Amino acid sequence: MKIEKLTNAISLQRSVDQANENHLETVHEVIEQVKQKGDKALFAYTEKWDGAKLASLQVTKEEVDEAYASFDPQLIEDLKEAANNIRLFHSQQVRQNIDFPLANNSYIQYKISPLDAVGLYVPGGTAAYPSSVLMNAIPALVAGVKRVVIVSPPSKDGKLPASVLVAARIAGVSEIYKVGGAQAIAALAYGTETIKAVDKITGPGNSFVALAKREVFGKVAIDMIAGPSEIAVLADETAYADEVASDLLAQAEHDRFACSVLVTTSEKLAEQVAIEVEKQLKELPREEIARASIENFGCIYIAGTLEQAITAINELAPEHLEIMTEHAEAISEKINHAGAIFIGRFSSEPVGDYFAGTNHVLPTNSTARFSSGLCVDDFVKKTSVVYYSEEMWQAQYPKIARLARLEQLEGHARSVESRSWEKGDLN
Amino acid sequence: MKIEKLTNAISLQRSVDQANENHLETVHEVIEQVKQKGDKALFAYTEKWDGAKLASLQVTKEEVDEAYASFDPQLIEDLKEAANNIRLFHSQQVRQNIDFPLANNSYIQYKISPLDAVGLYVPGGTAAYPSSVLMNAIPALVAGVKRVVIVSPPSKDGKLPASVLVAARIAGVSEIYKVGGAQAIAALAYGTETIKAVDKITGPGNSFVALAKREVFGKVAIDMIAGPSEIAVLADETAYADEVASDLLAQAEHDRFACSVLVTTSEKLAEQVAIEVEKQLKELPREEIARASIENFGCIYIAGTLEQAITAINELAPEHLEIMTEHAEAISEKINHAGAIFIGRFSSEPVGDYFAGTNHVLPTNSTARFSSGLCVDDFVKKTSVVYYSEEMWQAQYPKIARLARLEQLEGHARSVESRSWEKGDLN
Repeated sequence: MKIEKLTNAISLQRSVDQANENHLETVHEVIEQVKQKGDKALFAYTEKWDGAKLASLQVTKEEVDEAYASFDPQLIEDLKEAANNIRLFHSQQVRQNIDFPLANNSYIQYKISPLDAVGLYVPGGTAAYPSSVLMNAIPALVAGVKRVVIVSPPSKDGKLPASVLVAARIAGVSEIYKVGGAQAIAALAYGTETIKAVDKITGPGNSFVALAKREVFGKVAIDMIAGPSEIAVLADETAYADEVASDLLAQAEHDRFACSVLVTTSEKLAEQVAIEVEKQLKELPREEIARASIENFGCIYIAGTLEQAITAINELAPEHLEIMTEHAEAISEKINHAGAIFIGRFSSEPVGDYFAGTNHVLPTNSTARFSSGLCVDDFVKKTSVVYYSEEMWQAQYPKIARLARLEQLEGHARSVESRSWEKGDLN
Repeated sequence: MKIEKLTNAISLQRSVDQANENHLETVHEVIEQVKQKGDKALFAYTEKWDGAKLASLQVTKEEVDEAYASFDPQLIEDLKEAANNIRLFHSQQVRQNIDFPLANNSYIQYKISPLDAVGLYVPGGTAAYPSSVLMNAIPALVAGVKRVVIVSPPSKDGKLPASVLVAARIAGVSEIYKVGGAQAIAALAYGTETIKAVDKITGPGNSFVALAKREVFGKVAIDMIAGPSEIAVLADETAYADEVASDLLAQAEHDRFACSVLVTTSEKLAEQVAIEVEKQLKELPREEIARASIENFGCIYIAGTLEQAITAINELAPEHLEIMTEHAEAISEKINHAGAIFIGRFSSEPVGDYFAGTNHVLPTNSTARFSSGLCVDDFVKKTSVVYYSEEMWQAQYPKIARLARLEQLEGHARSVESRSWEKGDLN
């Protein structure tokens, strides 16, 4: 792993757009076909691309029962505990309506209500992570969304991974469809005979899925289209090199484009971590992926001072930040931009990926400067309500009419004045 | 204004994309030039497109003083009162951090912090609305954003409208630049010598502005790209036709593509409103615009029952909804999808446009199903914090490692287990 002196801002020059524009024509065609032919198109594409000839799209209760019964009971307990932690923490994010009384028995209000229906995309194969099912479904359910739907591409035998079905049941989602790719996104956005349209689509996916989400955006809401995962570790001489290295590699094993960065004030630690990374890489099952990530996008930066290191981290606005220094908690207060912060050596990033209760869907590619991880807010909408009594209107309408005329919107002024017009025999 | 029986869902088939793709090449070039040449490009484009040869980009304190001194004091009072109402209501939206204690002296946390810097685009000419300055700037300032910047294209004499400068001062914004179009958006996103980059850009604009915002999205955050404005009025036989008509026309005068719809259970009201609309149209300064809107996109729907009317409104999810019926407040409880709801005849929509305190930047084109008006939330970001003590880690890490291995992410398991590895002489 390369070591550099930290001089200027850390830059992450990566190809982060997962949407391959070459697939756009295909995606347009898929969406059009699903809009026109509904389920028929879903069956056809699933046979063509997933190699599965399905009798029906929806996963039955029996299939989930079977997956659940055959699943390791210890893992079911672990998933349940993780789900519970996520549910508890996200429940804290639930907001109440704002009722704001005005003079003259009038009021304004801010009504917070859940979306009606949300679709969660779960990728197939080894990218089908049960933890992602929990992290996407639970905030929606906590928000009060009545209908949460999962779509996921089946394997050739027409099945979904047991871990996805088990996580769905633990999260509380029972409407699950065996369909993936752009066709699944089209079905969620426009609806088919079997799959009713939703209002928002979340969850990660391949290039076809990312492009399809971009295309249906506006018809429905979508979550962010995430880039490759990132971690920055801020460490001083008190950190253990083997621990830092293992954390860098946990990120690197995700994806060739993942980015793991260490910023440290200790030259000794820098050197030891480089050695440890190489040592641990050799023993990692996903060595090839992790090595590509570390070699292309990994770096150890040696900072002259802790302040310089903190400034660089804030510039970077990493998705994940681990702080393994003396006074780590105090230092975390100086971090203005990060998706999630992990304080101290016992809070390694997988604690948040799986278990602590915070969400693991986080802003990548420096967007933590202005955006946030997935949360209950993403599944509600807010409606303003205005009630003016006659007395309140009487007191305020001349001001409103003047402001409208300042903007040369005479019709607006007349609207608010019309209540004073002498009423004829219209009614 | 045409009258129809309400049978199926009300559909709004409108050309709502304000971004003209033909301008895309120009926008790309402008962004590139601003990135390369900075201020120089801003001066050149402002001379070319706004006809203004500027000595400097930034509005001086003296210019604002002058605008303020020459402004109608009554209007200053009105704007101040409006600003105060907006500030008070938006202050209710401010949220506190969530501190969530866990066992073993551990905790997770949700830190809510303002964005560092926000840019507000204000269109030029007659579309330069002081109310929009208040509605965009105040939520950002209430959120705690330290740097709020306004950009707006100057007129040929190199000036910005006095109303914009006055509204900016009342809102509390003092950093204002005389630059508009795609070049202003590029400057806000990438920064120039004079204009430091921001983290988010909000505010309406023409096709060039909308396209430029779309292009810089990802580098910075942007607000929604709003479609033409809409109103639905839900009224029964107790409503006054002249009032309903004036409210429909207040919407219609905005824009040829604006959409005004009345849904009523009263045939009599329907007929009277149609007559009133025609009568009032003839006296409206913006008759031509309002007439085009009413003729192309306006409609009066006669519903068989109130329930049918409510269902149609919920399907429509209008930007603005006025309810002028008996028991209007009770009926408002049945509305699930609307940007803003105005209850009763004394709460006409301009009350919210200018004065009540709610925001007038609202979701259009049925997106109120899943999105919300501008609010304090749009100017903050949320960061998760995880702190596990040694005892907590000891209790939980085997579960976390098992969940990681379930997902075949061995590196994740080792990261959380590494804290138990026997420490060598690395440190």
